[in-house]
This record gives sequence, C-alpha cells and structure tokens, in this order.
Amino acid sequence: MAIDRVDAYLAEHRPRFEEQLKDLLRIPSVSAQPAHDADTRRAAEFIRDDLRSLGVAAELIEFPKGHPIVFGEKLDAPGKPTLLVYGHYDVQPPEPLEPWDQPDPFEPVVRDGKIYARGATDDKGQMLTHLKAAEAWLKGVGRLPINVKFLIEGEEEVGGANLEAFLTEHPDRLSCDYAVISDTSQFGPGQPAITYGLKGLAYFELIVEGANRDLHSGTFGGAVQNPLNAIATILASLKDDAGRIAIPGFYDDVRPLEDWERAEFARLPFSEEQFRAELDVPAVFGEAGYTTLERKWARPTCDVNGLWGGYSGPGPKTVLPRLAGAKFSFRLVPDQTPERVKHLVEAHLATVCPPGVRYSLTAMQGAPAVIVEAKGNPAVSAAMKAVEAGFGTPPVLIREGGSIPVVGLIKRHLGVDTLLLGWGQNDDNLHGPNEKFSLADFHRGIKAAAHLIAELAAIS
Amino acid sequence: MAIDRVDAYLAEHRPRFEEQLKDLLRIPSVSAQPAHDADTRRAAEFIRDDLRSLGVAAELIEFPKGHPIVFGEKLDAPGKPTLLVYGHYDVQPPEPLEPWDQPDPFEPVVRDGKIYARGATDDKGQMLTHLKAAEAWLKGVGRLPINVKFLIEGEEEVGGANLEAFLTEHPDRLSCDYAVISDTSQFGPGQPAITYGLKGLAYFELIVEGANRDLHSGTFGGAVQNPLNAIATILASLKDDAGRIAIPGFYDDVRPLEDWERAEFARLPFSEEQFRAELDVPAVFGEAGYTTLERKWARPTCDVNGLWGGYSGPGPKTVLPRLAGAKFSFRLVPDQTPERVKHLVEAHLATVCPPGVRYSLTAMQGAPAVIVEAKGNPAVSAAMKAVEAGFGTPPVLIREGGSIPVVGLIKRHLGVDTLLLGWGQNDDNLHGPNEKFSLADFHRGIKAAAHLIAELAAIS
Repeated sequence: MAIDRVDAYLAEHRPRFEEQLKDLLRIPSVSAQPAHDADTRRAAEFIRDDLRSLGVAAELIEFPKGHPIVFGEKLDAPGKPTLLVYGHYDVQPPEPLEPWDQPDPFEPVVRDGKIYARGATDDKGQMLTHLKAAEAWLKGVGRLPINVKFLIEGEEEVGGANLEAFLTEHPDRLSCDYAVISDTSQFGPGQPAITYGLKGLAYFELIVEGANRDLHSGTFGGAVQNPLNAIATILASLKDDAGRIAIPGFYDDVRPLEDWERAEFARLPFSEEQFRAELDVPAVFGEAGYTTLERKWARPTCDVNGLWGGYSGPGPKTVLPRLAGAKFSFRLVPDQTPERVKHLVEAHLATVCPPGVRYSLTAMQGAPAVIVEAKGNPAVSAAMKAVEAGFGTPPVLIREGGSIPVVGLIKRHLGVDTLLLGWGQNDDNLHGPNEKFSLADFHRGIKAAAHLIAELAAIS
Repeated sequence: MAIDRVDAYLAEHRPRFEEQLKDLLRIPSVSAQPAHDADTRRAAEFIRDDLRSLGVAAELIEFPKGHPIVFGEKLDAPGKPTLLVYGHYDVQPPEPLEPWDQPDPFEPVVRDGKIYARGATDDKGQMLTHLKAAEAWLKGVGRLPINVKFLIEGEEEVGGANLEAFLTEHPDRLSCDYAVISDTSQFGPGQPAITYGLKGLAYFELIVEGANRDLHSGTFGGAVQNPLNAIATILASLKDDAGRIAIPGFYDDVRPLEDWERAEFARLPFSEEQFRAELDVPAVFGEAGYTTLERKWARPTCDVNGLWGGYSGPGPKTVLPRLAGAKFSFRLVPDQTPERVKHLVEAHLATVCPPGVRYSLTAMQGAPAVIVEAKGNPAVSAAMKAVEAGFGTPPVLIREGGSIPVVGLIKRHLGVDTLLLGWGQNDDNLHGPNEKFSLADFHRGIKAAAHLIAELAAIS
C-alpha cells in the first residue's frame, strides 16, 4: 500500500530531516527586528527551495513592505480535495540572551532527544513536518493522493498585514477544502491533542509623557507628575485584586464556558501543584472562580509584556524621567473583538490616567478568538486517526490560550475551519529562552501529517 | 588691598579657567559605571594636580573599594579659622544619549554663554570655582588669609561609603570652623540664593520575580501572576490620587512647614504657569494642600526612577516575563530618616505585593534631611556679603529638594553647619540630557568664593 511506502520513506530519512531542521533553525529570521530582514528573507527562500526540490510549484509572494509569503501548490489530484497547509518561518526575538543555556539561540543544540533553538517548536520544527510529509508522498510514492497548497508566512510574530492582504486579494489561489496548522502543543508528553479553540489577541503599546526632558528627582520631585508613577497607576488599574480585568464592559462579550467543556477539562490529567512546582512560582494565580485550565484556555487575560523608562543600569540614578512605555495585551475569547477591546481600553485610560501627563495608545496586533466545530466533523475524525497513527495514542480535544490569527482569516476569507494539530509541549519555552522541540515528536508529527493526507483522501 | 589683587587676578585669567573646566568635563568620571573606573580616577588626579600646582598639599585618599577622595590643605594662617571646601568630581551617567543635542556629553559645547556637558553644573563647574578662588589668593596675593581644606569626593552620585569612612576615621584631618559646598542652584537667573535646607533621600531597588523563565503570554496568561502587572500594582500603591504618599506611617516624622517659611516662599517671585509652560507639562501635580515651592522644597516626595522588564524592542512580543525591576526613591524632610522609611516600605510591600510572585528590596542610598540655622549665624552673614560681591545682588534664603548627604555627615562628624552657595540654575538639567552651566555664573561663583575667604577672615 502507498501508506506503507510513505512510512518506509519516513523511517529511512530521519537523520536528513533533522539536519534540514537544523539548517532552517540557523537562519535568525526575527521578523520584529529590521536588522534581521535579510535573514528573514533567507528563511523564506529556504522553504521555497525545499518545496521546489519536491516538485511543488513554489514562489515568494512579495509585498511593498514587510516579509514575503512562501506559496506553493501541487494540484495533481483532480477531483480530490485540496488541503491548505499554513505555517510561519519567522520567529520571536531571542532576547534576553543571558538566560539561554547555549551561546547562540540560532545554533541548535540537541540534548536528551530535544533540539534547542529559537523557532524549534514555534514554528519551524512543527511547520517543517508538513513539508516532509509531502516529501514522503512525492518521493516515496511518486504522487500526492490529494491536492496540497502551502502558505508559509513570515509575519506571524509581528501580526503583519501581508497575509491578510494575500488572502483578501487572492482567495482563488488559496481556495481549499481543509486547512491544517501545526503551531500548538500536545496536552502533555505522550498525550497528543487536537485544539478546537484558540484565544484572540489585542496588543497595545502605551507611551506616557511628562516634562519635555529628564528631570532631577530632587529639584522637581513633588512638583510634576512622574510618567513612571503614572504608568504604574494606569497598568495597576487594568486588573483587580481577584485577577479579574477591571475595565468597564470588558466581560460583556465573553461567551461563558459550556458545561460539557468544564466537565471535559476537569477530566484531563492536570496537577495544579505540578504546574506550580515546574514553574517555581509560590502560587498559581488567576481569575477567581475558575480552574487553571479554564483560565488558560477559555477565560480572557491581561498581561503587561514590557515596561521601560528611566534608569535601569547599575547603581542609583535620581532621575524623574520624561517618558514611560509599556506593551500590554489581552487574550480574548469568543465573542470579544480586538476592535471593541481597543474602544474599552481607550475609554478606561481616559478615566484612570493621572493628571499632569499625556499618553498615547497604539494597537499593535489584534485577532478575534476562534472555536472550530469538533463534533461530527469528518475532517476532525480524519485528523484524529492520523494523529493516532503518528503518535500511537488517540488525541484529546482541548482549547489553547495562544492566538493564531490566521485561523480566523482562513475562516473568513476561505470559509474553511482549520485543523490545529500541535506537535509541541507546554514546556517548550516558545517565546522564552531555551526554546526546544522533541525530535521524537518531530518525526511523529511528520508521520501524522503524512497520514492526514491519506485520511483526507479517504473521506472523499 | 588684597581683595583687589584677587579680583584683578580673576579678571585676567577667565579664558584659562574656562579651558580648565572644559578639560575636566572631558573626563567621563561616571562613578556608577565600572567601565569608567579609570576615567573616574583620572578626574581625581586632575583635581589633585591642580591643587598641587597652587602649592596646596594634596593627595588621593585610597580605599579598598570604590573611588578615591582628593584631600588637600593649605594651613598657613595660624590663629585664623579653617574653611572646609567640599565638592565631587564624579558625575551621573549620561544615558540616554539620544536626547542630547551634542554627539558626546563629555565633549563640552559652548552656546549662548553656557557650557553644555555632563557634570557642567553637577558638580565639576561649581566645585572648580573654589579651586580657582584659592588660586586667585595664592597666585594673585601670595597667601590665603584663612586656612583651607579641600575634600573632593568621587562617589556622590552613587552614595558610596568612602566619604563617611574617611570622616569617621579622620575627623582630626578634616576639623574646621566652616564648611562650604557649591552644588545647588540660585533661585533664578539674576537671583542668587543661599540654601538653608535640603531634603534627605531613601533610594530603593525592587525586583519582582515570577516563574523560573519567560513564558508565552497565551499559553500561561491567566494562570500565573505576571511580575510586570505585580510591580505596577506595588508602585501604584505608593501614592494616592491626591499625590500623597500612601505608605502607612510615612508622615509621622514629617516636621510641618513653619509659618515664616510659608510666608517667605510665598513672597518669592515664582510663576506656576511659567514653570508649567517651561517644562511643557499639561498641569503641575503634587501633594494637595501645598504650593509648588513648598512641595519642591519642604514636603517629602516619592518618584519611580527606573522601570524595566519584558520586551521593549520594536514590534509586539507576547511574553510573560519572569522578572520586573524598579528603582524608586523618596526625598525626605526633617525629621524623617532613611532607616525608618526603609522599615515602613518593607512593611508596606509585605501588605501590597500581589500573590504568586516573590520580591526583594534593596536600599541603595540614604541620607537624612538637613536644616542649617540661618538667622544670626555670622558665617551666613559673611556668605551673603560674598555672594553679593560675586553676583552684584543680595542672595535670598531658600530650601532645596535635592539631597547632599555630606551636609549631614559634616554636621555629625565635624560639628559644623555647611554654607550651601549654589551657582547653578534650575533649568541646568543636572542628571538629565543637555546638562549646562552658565559661564558668567562660573566666574561670578569664583569671585563669590574668593570673597567668602576674605569675609570669613574678617569674622575672626
């Protein structure tokens, strides 16, 4: 059978797949940092060239600004369905570098069967599984049993506009019957999962300005508002002591958890104490009235992501700084929208900003939450079989706290729900130092992705 | 008369004095930054060598750690009183560099009669006036009419321990009848002042730690306390909406303003609107119930001096950081002490720190406030005459919001009140970018310092 030839091909080429992953991880494609623009493009070219080597028609879609999209298609299965594979080749900034256990986050290190590098799990390692799955079909069997399109973007980590522009302008080129993304996590080691819900995101930058220059805190202290004190007051006002977001109206659009979901989540093996101990925090903390899994997956959150101003070097400096800055964001759940949240935040700031300073708020990234209908969906059933084939265990259905804006875009522009098949682990440190990805899961993911192609071919 | 020869000498050597000031400003003696340790020593050597060139016995007092003290003495007036001149050769860090109008804060630029450089007014320019005054006596007249000691330290901006160690171990070497410091400001352009009160300081660094690594704000948001949110809550709790410090017990030791002081301050020409407009703030802001001058000079204050944590680079980064840091400080008035304030802050933090994080508080610098008895003090009367001679206008008596810990140390260890004769201006941007000092005031200060020597000789 064809699938046996696919499996044999995968078994044979494991070492080469790992070397390819390392080569891709060596490219510091940090989309947020203009100094890495050329590297980001190199990562796009790497993907394009790999697709071309399989015989997939692949090209870079260019835009006036930002990073290109890699688009590829292999449409040699007339009458068969089309699968759109989405992934992203850009990565988060590696900074701060000091906490990394390796000198260079872009020189992969393999330890205990895991590969450590920025982008290992988010998303280069996971995304590459679908390319290697296609390779197994094309090189091991000679053809794909369905049509496949690849949409690999370079602005996922910065919420860039190019992907939506492409989807808006060329829905025809992207038309498909199914979509799949591997950019999430398993429920735990040995327990794969299919994610049916994702949070949305509303990300802001706030600048608070006081006097027209830095001042001496002795000479001017007490006479003018200090932007750092003011920004602390503003940020403290975002949440109450019980962990609830204190912006008036914020919860108006929040869809409550359904009873079956709370029951499902409660059944999953999750130790709050182990979670606490593994993070080494004195206590878990979140919105009162909800379990940790409910907070993580299905309740909106508010986090300050960055804070700066004044003097942070060694020793004391008695400065009253002219400016304070913060990045902060909300994870949204259905039916919140980033537009409405921005409106509420603006109204809240107008109320809570202390006198004596000016502020400006910029919305930097936004996406609504999504829920995929899981029950009775033949694509989800196909994915469950494929994941079981790859991992040797049936997956569980979970939600996720992260945001993958493209899932909403694919639904909106192409009318298709996305299969979220995550090969990562929760402790992979995506976005933090020492990001990693299990090489065993890398290969399991490739196999699951290859079987997904077979299972989707069998539906039709 | 001798004083005429002094005045003539000063008039003749103005250009050379300015060149010397520039040479001193070119030395980046940033005591807070270990990378500048060699430069800081060079500044000490510069002062020592200049004193030696006048025939003053001068040396560097070395300590196991930190920066040396320049000590010099010229005790050739037996039976005459001894004046101790204090100053500091270290400067604040110049960062951030971007707002400076000149490429290098350590390459002085003269514009509109003002010299721009880090340390111009704080304290190299002001301190140098006393060396040049001594030079005018020693080179212009041949001798000083009183005994003079010089105590020029290099740890003023970092609250180093060496000065107090020296004062504690060698009060004999430093014994004196009067002390003078020029490290404050005039009341305004054309209105010199003698400062009779200074605030104290209690400076802290606060570190708030959450999980053992940076986390993804989607995967972990809502499940653990965010150190940045927590530090905002803590810092916001330090003051109430009316600008009053909200730490329980904080005002217990605050000596109220006396009626005559409020009346004196109210008489001084001060336009709140001009102050506001000059700083370009939408409104002045401070403790309710007090005027701006009262807040600046005689009420305790609380300012966040630095804030950091998470991502502050370009673009969004959805990180939930492991650590947040802040530097914050209180300006104290009589009879507060930094020790008691530290105790109150510790008790307050234990109450307000949100759950789920750990914190540590470090006291970085501390000094009590000081008030010098002005009325009926012959040294103050002598200083008023000297300042009038230098500036052509009688000085007013004011207080200051800044802290000069050495004033308290001199009182405690040597039993002497200090004359605070400030030659700076309030808009000199000490501690900020574009620090400056008027060259006219530089020369007026030298003349006032030279006349102070004559006036003190006349008392005895």
